[in-house]
Amino acid sequence: MEKAVDLDVLARRTPGFTGADLENLLNEAAILAARKNKKQLGMQDAEEAIDRILAGPAKKSKIISEKEKEMVAFHEVGHALLAKLLPNADPVHKISILPRGFALGYTLQLPLEDKYLITKEELLERIIVFLGGRVAEELVFNELSSGAHNDLERATELARRMVCEYGMSNLGVRTFGKQNRQVFLGKDLGEQKDYGNVTADAIDKEVSIIFSKCYEQARYLLSKNRDKMAAIAKELREKETMEGEDFNKYFDLIKPEEIAPIEPPKTDQGPLFA
Amino acid sequence: MEKAVDLDVLARRTPGFTGADLENLLNEAAILAARKNKKQLGMQDAEEAIDRILAGPAKKSKIISEKEKEMVAFHEVGHALLAKLLPNADPVHKISILPRGFALGYTLQLPLEDKYLITKEELLERIIVFLGGRVAEELVFNELSSGAHNDLERATELARRMVCEYGMSNLGVRTFGKQNRQVFLGKDLGEQKDYGNVTADAIDKEVSIIFSKCYEQARYLLSKNRDKMAAIAKELREKETMEGEDFNKYFDLIKPEEIAPIEPPKTDQGPLFA
Amino acid sequence: MEKAVDLDVLARRTPGFTGADLENLLNEAAILAARKNKKQLGMQDAEEAIDRILAGPAKKSKIISEKEKEMVAFHEVGHALLAKLLPNADPVHKISILPRGFALGYTLQLPLEDKYLITKEELLERIIVFLGGRVAEELVFNELSSGAHNDLERATELARRMVCEYGMSNLGVRTFGKQNRQVFLGKDLGEQKDYGNVTADAIDKEVSIIFSKCYEQARYLLSKNRDKMAAIAKELREKETMEGEDFNKYFDLIKPEEIAPIEPPKTDQGPLFA
Amino acid sequence: MEKAVDLDVLARRTPGFTGADLENLLNEAAILAARKNKKQLGMQDAEEAIDRILAGPAKKSKIISEKEKEMVAFHEVGHALLAKLLPNADPVHKISILPRGFALGYTLQLPLEDKYLITKEELLERIIVFLGGRVAEELVFNELSSGAHNDLERATELARRMVCEYGMSNLGVRTFGKQNRQVFLGKDLGEQKDYGNVTADAIDKEVSIIFSKCYEQARYLLSKNRDKMAAIAKELREKETMEGEDFNKYFDLIKPEEIAPIEPPKTDQGPLFA
Amino acid sequence: MEKAVDLDVLARRTPGFTGADLENLLNEAAILAARKNKKQLGMQDAEEAIDRILAGPAKKSKIISEKEKEMVAFHEVGHALLAKLLPNADPVHKISILPRGFALGYTLQLPLEDKYLITKEELLERIIVFLGGRVAEELVFNELSSGAHNDLERATELARRMVCEYGMSNLGVRTFGKQNRQVFLGKDLGEQKDYGNVTADAIDKEVSIIFSKCYEQARYLLSKNRDKMAAIAKELREKETMEGEDFNKYFDLIKPEEIAPIEPPKTDQGPLFA
Amino acid sequence: MEKAVDLDVLARRTPGFTGADLENLLNEAAILAARKNKKQLGMQDAEEAIDRILAGPAKKSKIISEKEKEMVAFHEVGHALLAKLLPNADPVHKISILPRGFALGYTLQLPLEDKYLITKEELLERIIVFLGGRVAEELVFNELSSGAHNDLERATELARRMVCEYGMSNLGVRTFGKQNRQVFLGKDLGEQKDYGNVTADAIDKEVSIIFSKCYEQARYLLSKNRDKMAAIAKELREKETMEGEDFNKYFDLIKPEEIAPIEPPKTDQGPLFA
Repeated sequence: MEKAVDLDVLARRTPGFTGADLENLLNEAAILAARKNKKQLGMQDAEEAIDRILAGPAKKSKIISEKEKEMVAFHEVGHALLAKLLPNADPVHKISILPRGFALGYTLQLPLEDKYLITKEELLERIIVFLGGRVAEELVFNELSSGAHNDLERATELARRMVCEYGMSNLGVRTFGKQNRQVFLGKDLGEQKDYGNVTADAIDKEVSIIFSKCYEQARYLLSKNRDKMAAIAKELREKETMEGEDFNKYFDLIKPEEIAPIEPPKTDQGPLFA
Repeated sequence: MEKAVDLDVLARRTPGFTGADLENLLNEAAILAARKNKKQLGMQDAEEAIDRILAGPAKKSKIISEKEKEMVAFHEVGHALLAKLLPNADPVHKISILPRGFALGYTLQLPLEDKYLITKEELLERIIVFLGGRVAEELVFNELSSGAHNDLERATELARRMVCEYGMSNLGVRTFGKQNRQVFLGKDLGEQKDYGNVTADAIDKEVSIIFSKCYEQARYLLSKNRDKMAAIAKELREKETMEGEDFNKYFDLIKPEEIAPIEPPKTDQGPLFA
Repeated sequence: MEKAVDLDVLARRTPGFTGADLENLLNEAAILAARKNKKQLGMQDAEEAIDRILAGPAKKSKIISEKEKEMVAFHEVGHALLAKLLPNADPVHKISILPRGFALGYTLQLPLEDKYLITKEELLERIIVFLGGRVAEELVFNELSSGAHNDLERATELARRMVCEYGMSNLGVRTFGKQNRQVFLGKDLGEQKDYGNVTADAIDKEVSIIFSKCYEQARYLLSKNRDKMAAIAKELREKETMEGEDFNKYFDLIKPEEIAPIEPPKTDQGPLFA
Repeated sequence: MEKAVDLDVLARRTPGFTGADLENLLNEAAILAARKNKKQLGMQDAEEAIDRILAGPAKKSKIISEKEKEMVAFHEVGHALLAKLLPNADPVHKISILPRGFALGYTLQLPLEDKYLITKEELLERIIVFLGGRVAEELVFNELSSGAHNDLERATELARRMVCEYGMSNLGVRTFGKQNRQVFLGKDLGEQKDYGNVTADAIDKEVSIIFSKCYEQARYLLSKNRDKMAAIAKELREKETMEGEDFNKYFDLIKPEEIAPIEPPKTDQGPLFA
Repeated sequence: MEKAVDLDVLARRTPGFTGADLENLLNEAAILAARKNKKQLGMQDAEEAIDRILAGPAKKSKIISEKEKEMVAFHEVGHALLAKLLPNADPVHKISILPRGFALGYTLQLPLEDKYLITKEELLERIIVFLGGRVAEELVFNELSSGAHNDLERATELARRMVCEYGMSNLGVRTFGKQNRQVFLGKDLGEQKDYGNVTADAIDKEVSIIFSKCYEQARYLLSKNRDKMAAIAKELREKETMEGEDFNKYFDLIKPEEIAPIEPPKTDQGPLFA
Repeated sequence: MEKAVDLDVLARRTPGFTGADLENLLNEAAILAARKNKKQLGMQDAEEAIDRILAGPAKKSKIISEKEKEMVAFHEVGHALLAKLLPNADPVHKISILPRGFALGYTLQLPLEDKYLITKEELLERIIVFLGGRVAEELVFNELSSGAHNDLERATELARRMVCEYGMSNLGVRTFGKQNRQVFLGKDLGEQKDYGNVTADAIDKEVSIIFSKCYEQARYLLSKNRDKMAAIAKELREKETMEGEDFNKYFDLIKPEEIAPIEPPKTDQGPLFA
């Protein structure tokens, strides 16, 4: 194994891996290194092995039109740029527009340390980062595509949890719905609705408020950094994959006024039920 | 195999086919060629083999009344004409009124290249093309028939996805409902409703707005091109099957003013939640 | 087989019969002919065999009161008369008040040719014909009986399809609800409701409008032809079974003004969503 | 078998009995006759055998309080009296306050002939007869008891059928809901609700109107015949079982004005959907 | 067996016991007698045996705080006092604050005779008796405890039955909902809701009216008899178990004005549907 | 076993343990003692054994950031402080920020005696204690984290029980919903909704009122004792685990005015249904 292999990075990229999984990972990496006639396993081999295990091998033969590649590049840079600009988001580790599995591209963020608690600000920023792909497409191409579907699904899930599980909305510091997990029919039968129609509508409204605020914030930040977004997307289209350090070079100087304060949905938690 | 066989067309007509499927396809084509005492397998044999595999053999013995044949011809031309006139729709490859399986006719569009992203404009145009069959019947015969059922079902599915999965409506850039797929009871148990009654009604309204706009557009375009529609339908009734090039001859000169701009449902995405 | 056996009629009366079913049918017919010591199988034997297979043998031992027989006769003539008067309904082939299976009588219509498309007018006329039995009872006896239950069920099914599957109502050219068919629990688990409460109520209203119009039309046509209805019912009570030609004798001269134009539910399809 | 055995009555009391059931019945009757050292099987033995098979042996050891016996007697006479007074109800064959199975008493009506159609008037009268037990308790004891539960359940079922299956209400000549029968989970999974909330409430209202009218009618008829009711109940308490002819003696002269015309719920069926 | 053993009381305390159950009961009683070196089985042994079979052996080792014992004593006396004061309630047979199974105490009422019908007054009084425990806690300690949960559940069940099964409310003489019993999934899948939202809300309101009236009545009667309640609770705390006769000593003279007339929920049953 | 082992404490910490469970517990404790080369099993060993059995071994290797540790410390002290200040809450036995299983820390309260009844005041105080963790985070860090999810879930469960099972709200002394337990699909299928929409909304409102009051109370008490909270959290961060007696030293003198009276949700239970 080369000295440059950063075990800490590998560890943070493989949460939940068992010993057997890690052994499998190193085997895979060794095979990749051997194919390149290398005697030592390098960091690149290890990361490629992780990507293959998590998302499948890169589909280089997939023929993607220039227009779509352009959209994918801006979509991923949209995610990455917001992850960079937001104070609590995890740093960008890699951006890629090499298709793998069903995905046309991906942006990988790696936390600096293990995290067990997640704050309201962090949750809001995660939603903003999820929306970044769609907003970038909209700003640059004035078009909406189906490519953001998965992002929207995950962002909606987070926003619902803020309201229904973490007590982070105007509906108060309580939970709504019971999770029906581990039942015999499959993994997750969704939540059981233990509230009335008025509450159901109120939950929808709170989720919409969260989205509305996050969308505005994503749009504001990306509009302000349009030039930077274009430059990075250009490099990404050429290289197809950018490491975090390459990406970070663009941000040697970010002026504080470029970063709008995230205005949290109005919930001063004083009078909970107006 | 004859030189005229266009492998690219065959590839685009057989998305998702495995190697075994393709081998099966060529066998089928070879049998069809042999029946005609041909020594080489031609493009027509290959396409007929695809049709048989996807939709069953042509049911020439099915006795369809003249009136119904007339309606089917206009119905298919309705689809084809809109596919031609709309800027983002896939080109028409074949139109047929030879019944196969449960279908009385079909219009086949083939994309020019593989597509992984689909934009809002493309989705709207697909809905408009789906509505073309029904609208043609209505315009020409002033009658509504049950023949459009399958078209309407697929168009409704697309419109619901625009609203609930792709965030392309006034309800905002989020998803509604969770897909319950891969459960043991069958393939798809439909979505799980994770929203309240007010949202459910709002989703219905958004879907209706999309349909209303698309219907108007289909009607506008087909009324403007009534003569062309009649001419093509006449040829189709005689020949029973038209290739794309025969169909395209009718459009050597389309004046831009014949094509109405598709006015998208009002969702400038600025203020998302009014 | 006697020359008078009309194979075309037999074919139209046995849609969906496999070869084995048809062989079985001829065996049954041969047995019936043999019981009458006939050497040749006649048309009557063949039709009786079809009736037995589809609905069970005639239950001549079933003792039905005179009053009920009277009601059944008018009920069936109500169906038949409307089938005759409406321009798009299939011609009457036979009327019978011999009970078979659970039915006390039946009216058999046979299409002149195979039909693959069914228009809105035809659907409306089918509903009107279904309502004919109940309306006749009401007009003649001023009584409502449970005998129309099956007719109403099938008419309701058609009206719901017009609204929810064929896009033939003011709710627009789209579908409502997804059919959950072929699931492991049985044949049909009914539709999945994929719309909100407001839409559900609107669907009910559209179905009610269709019924209201069809009911008025049935009542209008039967009131206008009360004498004819009484005459035919009298003959039917005596003979118990009437062939189409006997029935048609009553209509050598129908004046056009006896047939009211079916006024379709107001849906000029212009502005779809008011 | 004694000559007095009325086979016709036995037949009408045993609808749906198979040959084996009837053989079993006669065996049971023969045993009962043998216990009484009779050489011939009498009508009483046969009827007792039917009662045993349908409802279990009479539980003479069951100790029922005087007060309860009094209530049961009036309850049963309430049913019987209405069955007598209403023009279309089946004649009373037997009344009993000997408990059998879970029932404390019963009133047996026998139709004069087989019936295949049931009219709206007959259905309304059946509901009125069902309500007779409860109304009698109320009039005589000014008390409501749980004893009418089964009657109310069956009357509610009939009223719902009038509205939802037979098209006999202001909601029009159509059906509501689909019956989910013969599914693997059991006999009847109840109806599937294929209508919206507004319709559900309207159905409830129609059912309530039917009950309101029938209740008034039951109350009116029993109040008018209070003396007769008391006299019959007295005889029933002494004898414990009354045959139809004993019961009918009380009605040698009924004045027509004692029988109120049943005023049907206002549904002249003209304008169906107001 | 001692002569003092009252077989009638044992019979009334063991409804539904089979022969085998009774044999088991006497064995248990014989063992209990033998433990006390008695040669004859006494009434106390028999009753203790019944208690053990129905609720488990007395848990004398369970350490219950003085405060809780005090609350339990008043809770049970609350039940017993109302059972005594209400004209139709079954007489008190025993009161105990010896914990058995999950219960901290119990009040046992025994009917004077078998009952097959239960009147509206009796049902209302049962609900009042159920509420007695909670009301006593409230009056004496000004505290509400979780101990009344089971009482409230059973009282709610009775009130719902009055409205939905016995036709004893302003919603009229009919039933609501169908019981889904004996299905394969378990004993009782609850009722099937066969009514609309308006009716569901109306049922809730009727149940609430019943509770409101019964609660007022329980509070009125217990407030009026506060001294008596305290005296009996004191004796119960000392003795831990009181027989009916000891309890009844306190009521040698009850003045009629101590017993408020139970004012039934306003439902004179005249105009059923206002 | 050392003399210092307090069997009473061990008993109160192990409710529901069977004999075998206790044997297992002592084995575990003996092993822990042996590892430390102790000859006698001490109280600490026994308690550690209980913690391991209930929550898994302490995960000392889990690397938690300083910021998170700080939040966890204040979170746990928030629970403990409220448990101390509220008159009816169980005393604090131990506080720990050593992660075990999925929990980052825990506060252990031990009742002074077995409890079988729980009063409304005790339930409200339990909810207040549950909210203490979240409120402390909010007050000190002005941040909301996901760490309170489990607390909120349990508090919501208690509040729903107060309303739906214990009759402790403005909706009256009755129950709502039926528990569907012990069915074959798993442990708990949640409650069956046996009430209408209006009631469902009213239940939500009552639960919200309870939360609103409890939240205010938690905030009031913790704001008043901010200095004490900081001091205890500081000690807890250093020691990682605090025993009850160490915690209690901080409260040698609590002035009564520091403890706000818990104002119960307005339900004087007089007029139950306004």
